[in-house]
Amino acid sequence: MAFYNLADFQSKTLFEGFEGKIFHTDHVTLSYWQIAKGSILPVHSHIHEQTTHILSGKLQLTIGAETKTLEPGMFAIIPGNEPHSGLALTDCLVLDTFLPVREDYKNL
Amino acid sequence: MAFYNLADFQSKTLFEGFEGKIFHTDHVTLSYWQIAKGSILPVHSHIHEQTTHILSGKLQLTIGAETKTLEPGMFAIIPGNEPHSGLALTDCLVLDTFLPVREDYKNL
Repeated sequence: MAFYNLADFQSKTLFEGFEGKIFHTDHVTLSYWQIAKGSILPVHSHIHEQTTHILSGKLQLTIGAETKTLEPGMFAIIPGNEPHSGLALTDCLVLDTFLPVREDYKNL
Repeated sequence: MAFYNLADFQSKTLFEGFEGKIFHTDHVTLSYWQIAKGSILPVHSHIHEQTTHILSGKLQLTIGAETKTLEPGMFAIIPGNEPHSGLALTDCLVLDTFLPVREDYKNL
């Protein structure tokens, strides 16, 4: 399948306030997140390089020692193994990409 | 640098009607495209696996023998070496990811 419509897929609540629709290509994992205002992503890290794109809303993101509020038109690049955390300042729609594929997301 | 605001970067016209802001991570290339209504991306292919996310507008995309009109909330996964082409039905904002890094985009 080449074409995907998010409306055709059920979201899963992966963390409190984080509803995800997750897709795996041959090489990357894509996650579309609907995040409820006030939701917190605790500090964590993973081997995967991540990019985080804000599609709507405001997301406060901390990467290493740097914190920034991201809005549409802004994105972040998170190197593998870099600690990061987040706080949804409003309801948000966010697209994450992960490389390599997140095998830990395959059987959610 | 971890955080990026598209407003801080100059776009480049890579093809007629396609203004791109291109970023390279260690592993992938990200391209944000502002595409003018009526612009055509001719059939082409490349070794890179591509994902194409529609952020605003309507983009008609053909991948192999399949054609679909994509709107926000829709995306496409284009395997490496798969011929694809596009037509902007309206002005569009589109995010592409490429893996591996597009070395051919590094000196534009």
